[in-house]
Parts: sequence; C-alpha cells; structure tokens
Amino acid sequence: MARILGVDPGLNATGWGLLEIASDGRTSLRWGTIHPPLGELAARLHHINEQIAELIERLEPDSLAVERPFNHRNVKTAVMLGQAQAAAIIAAASASIPVHEYPPRTVKEAVAGFGSAEKSAVRQALITRLGLADLDASADASDALAVAYCHHLMAPLESRVEVT
Amino acid sequence: MARILGVDPGLNATGWGLLEIASDGRTSLRWGTIHPPLGELAARLHHINEQIAELIERLEPDSLAVERPFNHRNVKTAVMLGQAQAAAIIAAASASIPVHEYPPRTVKEAVAGFGSAEKSAVRQALITRLGLADLDASADASDALAVAYCHHLMAPLESRVEVT
Repeated sequence: MARILGVDPGLNATGWGLLEIASDGRTSLRWGTIHPPLGELAARLHHINEQIAELIERLEPDSLAVERPFNHRNVKTAVMLGQAQAAAIIAAASASIPVHEYPPRTVKEAVAGFGSAEKSAVRQALITRLGLADLDASADASDALAVAYCHHLMAPLESRVEVT
Repeated sequence: MARILGVDPGLNATGWGLLEIASDGRTSLRWGTIHPPLGELAARLHHINEQIAELIERLEPDSLAVERPFNHRNVKTAVMLGQAQAAAIIAAASASIPVHEYPPRTVKEAVAGFGSAEKSAVRQALITRLGLADLDASADASDALAVAYCHHLMAPLESRVEVT
C-alpha cells in the first residue's frame, strides 16, 4: 500500500491530493486547496508550512510529491512558486517524509502520455486511469493528485535506479 | 535597544549576523555561516530552517532581515535563493518574529551609499559606520550583517510609513 501526498504549490492557492493505492490496485483519493492569507510573504509561507504539516500528521503519507517550478520564464513568478514549494518541502522534511520533485512536463507525460498536455487532458487521464466516475477537484487539487499519481508511476523506476 | 538577525540565504551557505544596537548607540555583533548538507533539496531546506529556528531561540532577535532574491537573471539560481530565503522566513514566522525583506540594491545603497557597491565596499562601510577595528566574517556573514544594518537604518522610515 502506498500513500502519496501530492502538492501543487502556490502562494495564492496550494492544492493537495492524497492518493492511496492498495496492494490489490484499488485507489482512494482525498484532496483540497490551501488558501494562504492575503498580504505578507512570511504569513503566507507560514500558513502553507503549517497546513501541510497538519495534513501530514493527519493523513500519514509515506511520501510527498511536488511540482518543480523551474519552467517559468518570469523570474519573480518562479521564485514565488519555489518559496511555496519550499514551505511544503520543509513540512515534509521536518516530519521525516521523503520528498520527490517532478517537473510539470514529466507529470503531464507520465499521467496523460505527452508533456504538453492541457490541464483538462491531465484531469481526464486521471479519471480514466484511476477508474473514477468524475473528479470534482479544483484545478490546483487536480494538479496535486496528478503529481502524486506521477510519483506512483515513477517510484518503482526510481528505486531501481537507486539500487543499481 | 534593537536586536536584528540578518540572513543572507543560500542553499550552499547561509550567512547570519546578529546586530544589537543599544539605546546609547553602542553596537554588538555576532555572526556565522550555516552550511547545509550536500545533496537533496529537502535536507538542505530543513537544515537551514532548523538552524535559523535555533538561532532565533538562542539569540532572541526582535526582527529578521533578509535579502530578496529577485535580481537574478538565472531563473534556477533565483528559485534556489528564494527557497533558502523561505526556509529562514518560515523559521521566523513560526517564532512570531516580524520579517523584513530588502533587495540587494537597497542594502548596498543604505550601507555603502550606492546601489552598485562591491561586496568589499559594503564590508568597509560596515566597519566604518559601526566603528569596528575589523570585520573577520565570511562573505555570507558580512552580507547578513549588512542586511541587518540596512534594516536598522530603514526601520524608522518604515514605521513612519505605516503610521501615516
């Protein structure tokens, strides 16, 4: 059984999604969106850090998967995404949960089959591949579930790489 | 009396400097450099976050001043600086210490008198303005003291802005 907490970090909204995959392949999902307070950077980062720490304590994931923010042309946007990501990563590291980063392109490729997939195509791929009737999650939460599912697909490969 | 903890964030080396300024103008300095472990981002951010939290607990600063990493052309470098900065900011916010950010140009201007000052000129200005015999700090710790001193110079102006 794997319990992966996916996080789609952002200073305005941070999506999260817990993907549980039982050994018989059955999956269970939970998700939500963290809305940091408007205003100071410090208060926003603190809020994201605390909320992710609380989710980790409550949901007990065995790993955290997060999008890597390096594909942005706008330096300021990339820095802010990196900071929101750092807030989530620090919460995981403080709880001794391993952290896995994936570039957005890798997530899209793993989940939807091609790196330039639209958000809607990624969501549809999640619905199909996880056998869901629907996925009534916010865009951020849906992205968080996608990065969690990406880690589920990539993890066996990663372990193999680490062993050899 | 003001006790300002300055931080010059970096994933490889994070400088810190405590500037104490008594009401009679006498100053006292302490400084050091945090060297995060080589390797995973999560472990590095966790280390910076923990070390700054420990410094805050031990030195009891009343504010944290930190350089804003937005002047880099290289997105990857800027993101990494932003993440290291986030680790320090989250430590301060968790301890309810107010955080003040300054662009490097503002720090140079406030301390050395011009925004394009070289590191050595900033250090020399610190020595002169704080009446030190010498400043035997690493480049990162010296930069951290400079941002702390910048906050000391700017703080009265900031308060005035907030009041009116």
